[in-house]
Order: sequence, then structure tokens, then C-alpha cells
Amino acid sequence: MKLTILGCFSATPRTLGNTTSQILEIGNHMFLIDCGEGTQVQLRRHKVKFSRIKHIFISHLHGDHFFGLVGLISTFRLLTREADLHIYGPKGIKEVVTLQMKLADSWTNYKLYFHELTSTESELIFEDDDVEVHTIPLDHRIYTNGYMFKEKTGDRKLNIDAAEEANIDVAYYRKLKQGFDIKNEDGILINNETVTFPPERPKSYAFCSDTAYKKDIAPLIKNVDVLYHESTFLDAHAHLAPKTKHSTAKEAASIAKLANVGTLILGHYSSRYPDLEAFRKEAKTVFKEVELAEDGKVFNFY
Amino acid sequence: MKLTILGCFSATPRTLGNTTSQILEIGNHMFLIDCGEGTQVQLRRHKVKFSRIKHIFISHLHGDHFFGLVGLISTFRLLTREADLHIYGPKGIKEVVTLQMKLADSWTNYKLYFHELTSTESELIFEDDDVEVHTIPLDHRIYTNGYMFKEKTGDRKLNIDAAEEANIDVAYYRKLKQGFDIKNEDGILINNETVTFPPERPKSYAFCSDTAYKKDIAPLIKNVDVLYHESTFLDAHAHLAPKTKHSTAKEAASIAKLANVGTLILGHYSSRYPDLEAFRKEAKTVFKEVELAEDGKVFNFY
Repeated sequence: MKLTILGCFSATPRTLGNTTSQILEIGNHMFLIDCGEGTQVQLRRHKVKFSRIKHIFISHLHGDHFFGLVGLISTFRLLTREADLHIYGPKGIKEVVTLQMKLADSWTNYKLYFHELTSTESELIFEDDDVEVHTIPLDHRIYTNGYMFKEKTGDRKLNIDAAEEANIDVAYYRKLKQGFDIKNEDGILINNETVTFPPERPKSYAFCSDTAYKKDIAPLIKNVDVLYHESTFLDAHAHLAPKTKHSTAKEAASIAKLANVGTLILGHYSSRYPDLEAFRKEAKTVFKEVELAEDGKVFNFY
Repeated sequence: MKLTILGCFSATPRTLGNTTSQILEIGNHMFLIDCGEGTQVQLRRHKVKFSRIKHIFISHLHGDHFFGLVGLISTFRLLTREADLHIYGPKGIKEVVTLQMKLADSWTNYKLYFHELTSTESELIFEDDDVEVHTIPLDHRIYTNGYMFKEKTGDRKLNIDAAEEANIDVAYYRKLKQGFDIKNEDGILINNETVTFPPERPKSYAFCSDTAYKKDIAPLIKNVDVLYHESTFLDAHAHLAPKTKHSTAKEAASIAKLANVGTLILGHYSSRYPDLEAFRKEAKTVFKEVELAEDGKVFNFY
């Protein structure tokens, strides 16, 4: 699992700061999370292969989280994409994208599926053999969801030497990986755990932006490996947080602590602060494992 | 009169090439012409004061000419702009911008005026004491206008030494600049031309993108000082031009010749060409005064 920050600043794109967008590599997927203006250029800059993006998750319809979406869809068309594209986001996202395609008389030559969200309860919105994605209802000025990405427990790993020694036919190796006990060539039932290793621990990632401090989300993200939580403000401007429905670095850290997460990544910084280290410092007074998002930064989850 | 190219590539924004946008400084105006994705970052990069932009002219509703507009409008709001903003562009532009403001529940705190265009004949769309702007109907896949910007003839320049010698009271200097003959303090009528210089020659600029070769525009841009004409293709791909309703460098040059313009600026290059000099070379076989648009390039009109 690997997270690449394409942009992590709030409000407006700047010469040296992009608005929210991230790539999450999970299973064999490359999920795009939010898509501020300029995201397609950031994708090029970080050499992301456009055709690998098949699912885009949009948190809410403020410009700094989605003004780059229609341009990306349009560029996919110009690159003669053929693969389906799935877009998850608040109701209204289909209308605004299709209106722009209509005005441009430029319809995609690939299939575009909109999965519009309206629920204020967490729901499962994507699932396959490897991954599931749930919404995390947030508290912002307009309807907003965070997203919880969870790997599923994979197959057990074969201990080939042990399996050979136990005289198990290779035809049964797949069953072994699936956890079954198997009769060997001598008719003896072999205990699975003696010829396999446990599967890798499934990892999880929660993206929570934008939101006021909302402790109800803690049960939804309990024990997540990595939590990205917005921290628009420092304590000096804490009074602006509830009014604008954003969070401070300390509030983000409180959520991380409450939910017992592994690592907290801060982001969505207001551009008023020249020094991002101040965010880490304030958050660390509440929760220890704090990282700072920065444009272009890559986080590998082990 | 000064033209700054913010972006001049076709189709999609890239790491080193922005889509169409220009700033034209004329009279005391700062006109923004087209607004591809990322224009607001280009404006910052070139230190354009956002508050000076009061009129935006959009040629057509393809993404590479207007996907940056809604973000710019939104950023103006965040910067607590107060000045009115006027937007000229094809019918539909109001609906698509207001839909995005509605979905974001973010209405501008300044006045936003849409001037929607539908005519296929050239029309006067802006006029004040210094400048007038006419549309130039173009031939593209969707409804598209170029724009013709003309300075008006300004006041005559006072020849102060001559006016003093002619014994004219300073109270009449304004009338002199306006071209009137004036009686001096001795009651003698003074011929205006003996105490003033002629006004500066008014300059003009025509922006024509995107369009197939359309010679009907020549009378509309006759004798213009500077013509920006799209040249998406070189001769090698001339067969694509009519199909996609774009022009080649030579076709742009033919229009420049036909209209007897001062200087031709080429732009809207397809990204398939690594060497822009080839555009100049092909155009020069038809018309002599050719310049190449490049992102960040500034043209001063003398």
C-alpha cells in the first residue's frame, strides 16, 4: 500500500502548492482521491500512468477538491482511453460533469460510471477480492464524505520446503494457500499451519478531509494503520475552525488518539502558515505518530 | 498595449505547457482572454494583480479554453474581491458556472455579470472612452468567437511651449487636447494644429482561436496591428485541420496576408510537435512578420 500526495493545500492552487489530490495504490488498484485544479499536471509530474486510474473518489464539491475532475476526464478522452472509469462523489457530480461535456459537444469514448452518494451513514461503496471502500460521513459546510480503504486478508503463504517434505502434490498448493488441510500422497492429513505461513496483515487507510472536529468518526476508523486528517488551522486560529467547519492540528490528533490509529498524516493546510512544522508540533502534544503531507511526498505502509 | 501569453498549447495542460490564456493590457484595462485549467497559477507566476482583471473573454466552451474559469472565480471570492467581474462567452457559460457555485454553496461576494453570446455575426460587445471590443465569428466544432480589441483615437498631445507662446490661458488646455481652436488672451483665434501634436495612433489586436481556415474573417480584422491566429498543425498533418476545425501555420499566415495585418502571432500548437520553429518557418513562406507564442512571453505593441 502506497500513498502519493499530489496536493495538500486548502482553498486555491498556487505556484508552489496544489489543492487536494492523492493516489492510493492498494491491491492492484490505483485509486485517485479528490481532484483539485491542476491534478492532471501533478499526475504527469509524478509519472502516474493515466490508464491505471479506474476509480476516483471525490469527498465534496468544493473547488479545491474537484475542479480538476472534468479536465482529467476530458484528457482521458483525448488520450483515447478505453477502460471504464468509476467516479464516486456527492449527488450533483454527474450533472456538473455531463453539462460540461454537453457544452463542449465532447462525450467520452470510454464508459463513465457515476456513483452518487447521499447517505449520512457510512456505507460500503466498493468491494472486490482484495479491497473494500467505505464512506466516512464528515461534518463540513456541504455534504462531504471521507473514505476508508481496507485490504482484505489475503491468502496464506506457501512454505514450499515444508510442503515438499510433507509430500503434498503441487495440485493442492492452491487449496493450501486458501487454508485447507490436505491429504498427502501417502493419504496422511497434513495440518495446514505446518506447511504455510500466515497471510500478510491487511492494511488500511482513512482519508478525512474536509471536516470540523467530529468524534463520531472514531469508531469508523478504529485502529486504521494510517489516517489522513485535515488540519486547516493551528491553535492561533482555532476560533475559525468550527465556523468554517475545519479542524486544527490538535483536533486531528485527538481523533487519531481516540481511534487508536497507527500514523496520522496532517494536510489541507491554510496558506497563511509559512512553516508546516508548527502543525506537527501542535499535533504531537496530543498524539505521537504524526507525519506532514507535502506535495509529491510518498508514504509506504508496512 | 501589451500582450502576455499565459498558455498557448492545445488540448491538455502539461508539465511544461499550459492551455490557452492571455492577458491584454489596453487603455487602463487588463483583459483576460480565455482561461484554460491552471490559468490562476499562471497569473500568479507572472505576478498579475488579480483585482485588475474585470473583464474575461471566453472564445468557446472546450476545456482547454475555459476549465480554469470557475476556479478563478472561486479564488476571487476567497480573496474577498469586491469589484464587479464581467464574463463574455457562449451561451451556457452562466449555467455551468452557477451550477458549480450552487453545488459548492459558495456564491461570490462581488457582482458577477455574464454576457452570453449567440450571434454568428460580428457584434460590438464592449465599449468605453478608450476601447472597443467586437466578436469575430469563427468556424470550429462548437460555437466560437474570436475577439477584436481596438483602442480609440485618444486626445491630441499639447505642445506646451507653443501654447504658452500663443498666449492661451491654461483653462483652455483641455479643449485644445480635444482638438478645438481657441481664442487666446488677445482675442485671436489660434489654429489647434499649431499648438498640439496629433494623438498616438490607436492600436488593435485580434485573437482568433480556435478555427478552421475561414477567409471571411479577413475584412473584420483588416489592417489589425497584431493578429493571434491558431496554428494547431504543420503541413504534415494538414489533412487533420478541416476535420478537427483547426488551422495550419500556413493557413494562419494566409489569413494574415489577406487581412494585411502588422504582425502574426502563432499559437495553439498540437503537442505532437517538439520544435515550434517549424511553425514559424512554414508560416513565413506565406507571410513575413511572424512571431511564436510561448508561455510567459510578452509582446509590446508600438
